[in-house]
Amino acid sequence: MKPLYVRVNPLDNVAIVVNPEGLSSGSVFECGLVLKETIPQAHKVALVDIAPDGEVIRYGQAIGSARRAICRGSWVREELLTLPEPPALDRAPFAAATPVPAPPLEGVTFDGYRNADGSAGTKNILGITTTVQCVAPTVEFAVRRIKAEILPRYGGVDDVIAITHPYGCGVAIDAPGAEIPIRTIRNLALHPNLGGEAMVVSLGCEKLQPARLFAIGEDAPWMVRLQDEQYGGFGDMVAAIMALAEKRLEKLSRRTRVPCPASDLVVGLQCGGSDAFSGVTANPAVGHAADLLVRAGATVMFSEVTEVRDAAHLLTARAADADVARALVRELAWYDAYLARGGADRSANPTPGNKRGGLANIVEKALGSVAKAGTTAIMAVTGPGERVTSKGLVFAATPASDFVCGTLQAAAGMTVHVFTTGEGTPYGLAMAPVIKVASRTTLARRWPDLIDVDAGRIATGDATIEEVGREIFELILDTASGRKRTWSDRWGLHNAPSLFNPAPVT
Amino acid sequence: MKPLYVRVNPLDNVAIVVNPEGLSSGSVFECGLVLKETIPQAHKVALVDIAPDGEVIRYGQAIGSARRAICRGSWVREELLTLPEPPALDRAPFAAATPVPAPPLEGVTFDGYRNADGSAGTKNILGITTTVQCVAPTVEFAVRRIKAEILPRYGGVDDVIAITHPYGCGVAIDAPGAEIPIRTIRNLALHPNLGGEAMVVSLGCEKLQPARLFAIGEDAPWMVRLQDEQYGGFGDMVAAIMALAEKRLEKLSRRTRVPCPASDLVVGLQCGGSDAFSGVTANPAVGHAADLLVRAGATVMFSEVTEVRDAAHLLTARAADADVARALVRELAWYDAYLARGGADRSANPTPGNKRGGLANIVEKALGSVAKAGTTAIMAVTGPGERVTSKGLVFAATPASDFVCGTLQAAAGMTVHVFTTGEGTPYGLAMAPVIKVASRTTLARRWPDLIDVDAGRIATGDATIEEVGREIFELILDTASGRKRTWSDRWGLHNAPSLFNPAPVT
Repeated sequence: MKPLYVRVNPLDNVAIVVNPEGLSSGSVFECGLVLKETIPQAHKVALVDIAPDGEVIRYGQAIGSARRAICRGSWVREELLTLPEPPALDRAPFAAATPVPAPPLEGVTFDGYRNADGSAGTKNILGITTTVQCVAPTVEFAVRRIKAEILPRYGGVDDVIAITHPYGCGVAIDAPGAEIPIRTIRNLALHPNLGGEAMVVSLGCEKLQPARLFAIGEDAPWMVRLQDEQYGGFGDMVAAIMALAEKRLEKLSRRTRVPCPASDLVVGLQCGGSDAFSGVTANPAVGHAADLLVRAGATVMFSEVTEVRDAAHLLTARAADADVARALVRELAWYDAYLARGGADRSANPTPGNKRGGLANIVEKALGSVAKAGTTAIMAVTGPGERVTSKGLVFAATPASDFVCGTLQAAAGMTVHVFTTGEGTPYGLAMAPVIKVASRTTLARRWPDLIDVDAGRIATGDATIEEVGREIFELILDTASGRKRTWSDRWGLHNAPSLFNPAPVT
Repeated sequence: MKPLYVRVNPLDNVAIVVNPEGLSSGSVFECGLVLKETIPQAHKVALVDIAPDGEVIRYGQAIGSARRAICRGSWVREELLTLPEPPALDRAPFAAATPVPAPPLEGVTFDGYRNADGSAGTKNILGITTTVQCVAPTVEFAVRRIKAEILPRYGGVDDVIAITHPYGCGVAIDAPGAEIPIRTIRNLALHPNLGGEAMVVSLGCEKLQPARLFAIGEDAPWMVRLQDEQYGGFGDMVAAIMALAEKRLEKLSRRTRVPCPASDLVVGLQCGGSDAFSGVTANPAVGHAADLLVRAGATVMFSEVTEVRDAAHLLTARAADADVARALVRELAWYDAYLARGGADRSANPTPGNKRGGLANIVEKALGSVAKAGTTAIMAVTGPGERVTSKGLVFAATPASDFVCGTLQAAAGMTVHVFTTGEGTPYGLAMAPVIKVASRTTLARRWPDLIDVDAGRIATGDATIEEVGREIFELILDTASGRKRTWSDRWGLHNAPSLFNPAPVT
């Protein structure tokens, strides 16, 4: 393979090396550029001489300034860059460049499970919600028996899952921020893929009483409370959970897939283990799929506050109106304060793997991350754990942690998850299918039984962003309809829910 | 059953009703006291008239002052009490009343598994530590196959467990407090019941690099890193974990139980779902067992900062020396600040169940809680997640959350856990056996397949604190030796590790 780099924006004064083995000092690109030193794949090369304090530009934006002179053909490494201040939130431009809607894509549908609340599921799962970790092993014990003894009799139900978490007791349940884990548990319990109805196992004495989650009385139909006097020990508890589960399974097994408009689809976008290719291949391809979904009427969420913080000014400008921009600023400012209270800031974000993958700092990571969000207007902003109710592109304000973001996007109502990765991760969720998109062909080839889409073909010129984006769009519809299964679902790889609790434990 | 109350201390001006059905207004106690109103079991009755602002005294200490006059024979409910200020830490008496050591109990032993690091296990478990949640489903998949396909060939190994958690990435890993989850994961991996050697599965790009946990190089003997180029996808990853696990199982299965002195035993004490009986029956009985263990040379931990905070002055006085008292004050002050930073204080602690069980506030709960710690001198204080190295009674400063406390006591090296409960919880841990002690006979009778010891007999006069304490002491030795199995182990009830991370997620 001849020496190859990718420059994203005509303004950029750096580009990234495409060749899988990297390039050695002296390599010559087609344009005549000669490498001054050896540069690994995905790392940056200076396209021009950059003066001390000069801006290093990628994605058409400054990702930092040079600590010293950087010669043309040199490796632009993390330690050569100073981290710029994040964009000031009080001067963010509100709805200054709201994109004009693209022509709608009419008649796009998927085959989903219609719920009484109007939502549509992409799976048909019995989910058993727990109010407190005390009951988790009991519910897990019952779930193993339900799957072995009862589920085989009820066709058409995909899975039985225990929604366990470490919340519910031993927490400051009235402290600021405690509403986040509470509404997350509520919204997970009512997830469209669980039929939109909650089945709950409570202990009895926990702080998170079921009535804090749901409008239910003592005789709630789908609840087992282990401390109730009628249960004479563990055997009785398990029998009660199994009996209630069987009633739910009877109901769930009567459901069938029906054609649903794309406007019933809620797609969550996330990246994890990003590299410098993520913003060039996988994320723009997902961004194109996001644009198609929005045109088809679907809801598309992007998230990860610390990974969009440095693009705040670009996002507020894209807001549908000033209210949406204001809500975005409110969520970003809340997170700034949350991090500061804990003695951290957004620079805590890039991982060793991100850096190994060529990402110098959080600014570069953020600019690549927002490429997932495509080009449409941001129609709404939701707080962490809230249910999304708008159509079109929505910012769901969640931490960037893969598991926390996935959990909160699920709580928001996500029924298909698209996950881009550069370094690779065998990630999955029980509640919604996860489509994994690799930023590099080397990863897609090395992990053929984990990666669903190879977006690395974009860097080598073997496919366009639009082609891979269209492929992802079709795969989302096929997956939502149960026509295709993701690798993580085939293996049953399901990361446990991970709640975001900014309040103290007690 | 005739009307019966329990008064703990001669100074007390309240007592709690013993009768399981409670007592109705007009009931007459043997002493002539007549109930002015109906009082549920475990709730408090005023033994004398208490003037407005007068102290309400239980355990010989003020648990609050009366909001209005309380007549002799009335129900002393939560809303009649004002919550006093917590004991001032800057005026806590240091080692002012250090208990004199009781005569040692010589020759007490248990049959444990000796480890190379000098520790002794009470179980023989293959534990697979994860550095990050990304790898959890892969490890869980491998563990299911290891248990089905490999473990049956290796006798003498009790279990194979995946030590999963939501930490490792997406966290501010250099923020203040981040050392707590990191050292917790390290110390769990090196737990005595896992052979004192870690087997680790890492992803590769995560923030929590294995080298932050262990002094290991690239060629660490017991590690699989999923992103390593040699693994061509999921099948290879699982095969690598299974092959490494088999080597560990070969080694573990060669171990046998050998007599170990009681000084090799590390017992962790905790309460959960407490009621007003907890401080009268279960906790004092466990306290007597703790005294016997200390006399036999063992290490005994008590914990739960918010549940000892209101007894701070009693504990600093019991410290072995001023340094221990100073360490205690340091940990309690740290927790005060942690709660304040999150907009909470220790009053966030009592649960609805605690209150239903008769506990008016955190002061009453704390005074009952510290009864678990018996009467011996406090020899050392350890921070959350640290390994305990001292013998005798130790305060391991952990949150009161059952799961967090259990996890941190396990990280501290606990090999037997004693858990007292009033309301009842089907709690258990994978890493160490959990002995559950009920504070009331009604609970022990209702849950015969979950409760290991009925301490409720103390309230009805059917057993003394010393008798039940001795029974718990013997059961600890039998359980540690594998001669008896706890109910939670028989059912396999294992609450997942729950880390304490006071630092932000990103």
